[in-house]
Amino acid sequence: MDTRETSGPGTVAPDLGPATALRCRECGARCALGPRFACPECFGPLEVDYTFTKVTRASIEAGPSNIWRYRQLLPVPDGVTATRNTEPGWTRLVRADNLARELGMRELWIKDDSGNPTHSFKDRVVAVALAAARELGFTVLACPSTGNLANAVAAAAARAGIRSVVLIPADLEQPKIVCTAVYGGLLLAVRGTYDDINRLATEIADDEDWAFVNVNVRPYYAEGSKTLGYEIAEQLGWQLPEQVVVPVASGSQLTKVDKAFGELGDLGLVDPRPYRVFGAQATGCAPVATAFKDGRDAIRPVRPATIAKSLAIGNPADGPYVLDVCRRTGGGVEDVSDDEIRDAITLLGRTEGIFAETAGGVTLASLRKLLDEGRLDPAARTVIINSGDGLKTLDAVSSVVGPTAEIPATLEGFRSALPS
Amino acid sequence: MDTRETSGPGTVAPDLGPATALRCRECGARCALGPRFACPECFGPLEVDYTFTKVTRASIEAGPSNIWRYRQLLPVPDGVTATRNTEPGWTRLVRADNLARELGMRELWIKDDSGNPTHSFKDRVVAVALAAARELGFTVLACPSTGNLANAVAAAAARAGIRSVVLIPADLEQPKIVCTAVYGGLLLAVRGTYDDINRLATEIADDEDWAFVNVNVRPYYAEGSKTLGYEIAEQLGWQLPEQVVVPVASGSQLTKVDKAFGELGDLGLVDPRPYRVFGAQATGCAPVATAFKDGRDAIRPVRPATIAKSLAIGNPADGPYVLDVCRRTGGGVEDVSDDEIRDAITLLGRTEGIFAETAGGVTLASLRKLLDEGRLDPAARTVIINSGDGLKTLDAVSSVVGPTAEIPATLEGFRSALPS
Ligand SMILES: Cc1ncc(COP(=O)(O)O)c(C=O)c1O
Ligand SMILES: Cc1ncc(COP(=O)(O)O)c(C=O)c1O
Ligand SMILES: [Zn+2]
Ligand SMILES: [Zn+2]
Repeated sequence: MDTRETSGPGTVAPDLGPATALRCRECGARCALGPRFACPECFGPLEVDYTFTKVTRASIEAGPSNIWRYRQLLPVPDGVTATRNTEPGWTRLVRADNLARELGMRELWIKDDSGNPTHSFKDRVVAVALAAARELGFTVLACPSTGNLANAVAAAAARAGIRSVVLIPADLEQPKIVCTAVYGGLLLAVRGTYDDINRLATEIADDEDWAFVNVNVRPYYAEGSKTLGYEIAEQLGWQLPEQVVVPVASGSQLTKVDKAFGELGDLGLVDPRPYRVFGAQATGCAPVATAFKDGRDAIRPVRPATIAKSLAIGNPADGPYVLDVCRRTGGGVEDVSDDEIRDAITLLGRTEGIFAETAGGVTLASLRKLLDEGRLDPAARTVIINSGDGLKTLDAVSSVVGPTAEIPATLEGFRSALPS
Repeated sequence: MDTRETSGPGTVAPDLGPATALRCRECGARCALGPRFACPECFGPLEVDYTFTKVTRASIEAGPSNIWRYRQLLPVPDGVTATRNTEPGWTRLVRADNLARELGMRELWIKDDSGNPTHSFKDRVVAVALAAARELGFTVLACPSTGNLANAVAAAAARAGIRSVVLIPADLEQPKIVCTAVYGGLLLAVRGTYDDINRLATEIADDEDWAFVNVNVRPYYAEGSKTLGYEIAEQLGWQLPEQVVVPVASGSQLTKVDKAFGELGDLGLVDPRPYRVFGAQATGCAPVATAFKDGRDAIRPVRPATIAKSLAIGNPADGPYVLDVCRRTGGGVEDVSDDEIRDAITLLGRTEGIFAETAGGVTLASLRKLLDEGRLDPAARTVIINSGDGLKTLDAVSSVVGPTAEIPATLEGFRSALPS
C-alpha cells in the first residue's frame, strides 16, 4: 500500500470531487485523502469530509438515472459518468399499500434494491469504491464478502477491465458463488466465518497493493450507501420519511442512510424534519440489537447462526455508530427468528410481488415486530429497504413454497386442480 | 369471455389511450378493442392500431423512469402511472467496449433487461397486459409460460391485488418455480412441453373469464415489447442502431422492436435510417432459423431440446412475422449450440460484468456466429438484448465455473492459492 503514497499514480493528488479530507469518527483528527481507513492518531475509523459546492434539486434531476446523479455529493470525480462502471442505483421506490393494509399501516414504501446490476445494494458501494480506487491508482479490486459484495466486486472489476480478488466463506449459497465465478477473477472459498475472512483480508491488505473495497478504501466505499438515502428522499418528492427500517450487517448502510438524510437537510434540498432510524438483524446474529436492548455502548461479538447469511457479521465494524444513530433519532434495533424471516419473504411476495432475499425478510420481519411492540408508529410515513434478491437465497424458502399441483396437459387435469 | 362483451365492466368502452382498434395482420380487417386475439374474418392474429397524438422527445423525457414514459404510444390509459403495477423498464443500455474488442467490433451495446422487477423483459409485456386487462374488466391474470412469464405474471397480479393462474412445464428450472410460487396465486406444473401447455391454455381461455396475457389479451401484451425498442433509441440519444440482435421464442419481442423503430421514425422522434434485425435461437429449438436458412415462409414445428428453456417454443406464433422483418431489413436468423450458449454466458460475464440467462447466451453466441460468417458488419453500431437473468438458469453454467480454490483462513493458505 505504501507505493500509493511515495510513487506511482498515488503521488498525484486524487480528484475525488467534493471530498476534501478524511476525518476520524472518534477523535476528529484529519488526514489527506488516500487509501487509509484507520486514524493515524487513535486508530478510529476514518470518514470522508466534504466541501460541497452549490447543489440544487434541478442539478440532480438533470443527471443520469443512476447513483451518479448525486456525484456532487460523493467522493468521485465529476467525470465519473464517462468511466467504465456498473451504474447502479435509481431503483424503484414502491408504494406498498397491500402490505400496509395487512400490517395496519397508513403509508409504507419499499426501496427495492434488487433492481441493481447484481441485484443488491452492494453495487452502490462498489461503484463508488471503484471510482475512488481508480483515482487512488489501484488496479486490483478485492474484498472479503458474505456474498452480495462478492458478486458486485467481481462484476464491477470485469466491467472496468481490471483484476478482482474475492474471498468468500466456503459454505456460501450456491447462487452467490456461481454469480461471482461467472465474472472471472480470482475467487477463493475460505474455510471459516465471515469474521475470520475479514481478518485475513486485513492482513492481505497490508501486503498487497490492492483496493480492498471494504478494508483500505472503506471510507469511500461506505459513502456509496448514502445514495439509498438520497434516492428515497428524492423519490418521495424531496421529503424525508418519518421512519426507516434498514438491515444491519457491519452497520455501514444504516449509518450512511442517516448521514444522507442529514446532508439533504443541511443543503436545503429537503425540509429537515425529524425522522427515526430502525436497524434489523437476525436473532442468529444480533450483536447490535442485543447491545441496543441491553442499553450497552459496546458490541459483544457473536458467532453467527442464521439463514440470513448476507447479514452474518458477528463483529460489526460500525455497530457502535448504529447504536448512536438509532438512539439519537428515537429509533431502535430489532432482531427476528429464521421462521419470521421466511414468513416475511412470502408475505412480501404475496402482497407486493417483490421477492426479497433473507436480508429483506429480516427487514420486513423486524418492521412487523416493531409494530407489534408499539415501537413504530403505524400512522407515520415509513420506508423499508429490500437490499437484496430472493433468487440468491432460494433455499431459504424452497421448502415452504412450490407449485399448487402437478397435472397432465388436459382440461380434465386442469379442472381437477382448481380450488372448489 | 362473452360476459366482457354483453355485461359488466366490458360494456363501457375501455380507455386504452391511443389504441383505436384491433387490426388483422393477415387480411387487414378491423374490429373493436376487446379481449380478442384472432381475426373474425380469417383467424389471423390481431394487432393494436393507434391514432397517436403529438408525441415529443420532451414529453417522453418528462415521464417516469419506467415504460410508462411511453404511455402515449401504448394501449393503456393516460392514468396508468397511478395504478398498481410493477413499473418495469428504463433498464441499462451498457456500452460493451471490452466485449467489442474481443469480437473485433467497433460499437456494441447491451440492453440489459435483467434489471426489471422479476429480472426479465417479460415484466414489460405483463405490465401492459395488466393495464389493458384492467380496462377490459378482467380480475384474474393468467398465462402458460416457459418460466420468465410465470414470474412476471404472478408478481404483477400480487402487486395489483388480483388472482393469478400460471401454467408451467413440470421440468422447469427450480429458480423459476420458486420465484413464481413465492408470489402466491395458483401455480400448476403441467406434464408436457410448452407447446402442450399453450394449447391447454387456449382451451381454458375459452371457458374461463380470465386474462391470459399471451392468449386472449395477447395483442395488448405484445405491444409491451415495443418499449425495448423505444428505450434503445432514446438511450442512444434518439438514434436507431444499425444492427440489433434479438432472442426469438414466439417471435413477438423481435417483431415489436422492429415496430417500435418504425414508429419512432414515422413520428419524427428519430431519423428513420435503415437498420437490420437479426433473430437468435438455440439449435435445439430453431424452427424460425431453419425456415430462414431454407428460404421457406412456413414454420415447421419442432420438439425442443436445449438448455435455453425460456426460448423453448417449438411452434412459434409470430415465426412468420420474424421471417418478414429479418428479410425486409436485410438481417437474418441464426441458431447456436448449448456449448456455444454456455461459452457466451461466461464471455459476457468476464468482459462486461453481466450475468445473462441462457436466452442472453443465445443472443450473444448468435452475434458471434453472425460475425464469423461475415453476415453482421463489425463496424456498424450494434445492440444486443440480454432479456433475462443468469440467476434463473444457474445450472447451465454451474458445471463450468466455480471458485478458483478452497483455502484455510490463513495468510499461508492464501499465498499458496495465488497464481504464480
Ligand atoms: C443484502 C444485504 N443487505 C444488507 C447488508 C448490510 O450491509 P452493512 O454491512 O452495510 O450493514 C448486506 C451486507 O452484506 C447485504 O448483503
Ligand atoms: C428471457 C427471454 N428472452 C426472450 C424470450 C422470447 O420472447 P418472445 O416469445 O417474444 O420471442 C423469452 C420468452 O419467454 C424469454 O423468457
Ligand atoms: Zn482518531
Ligand atoms: Zn383477418
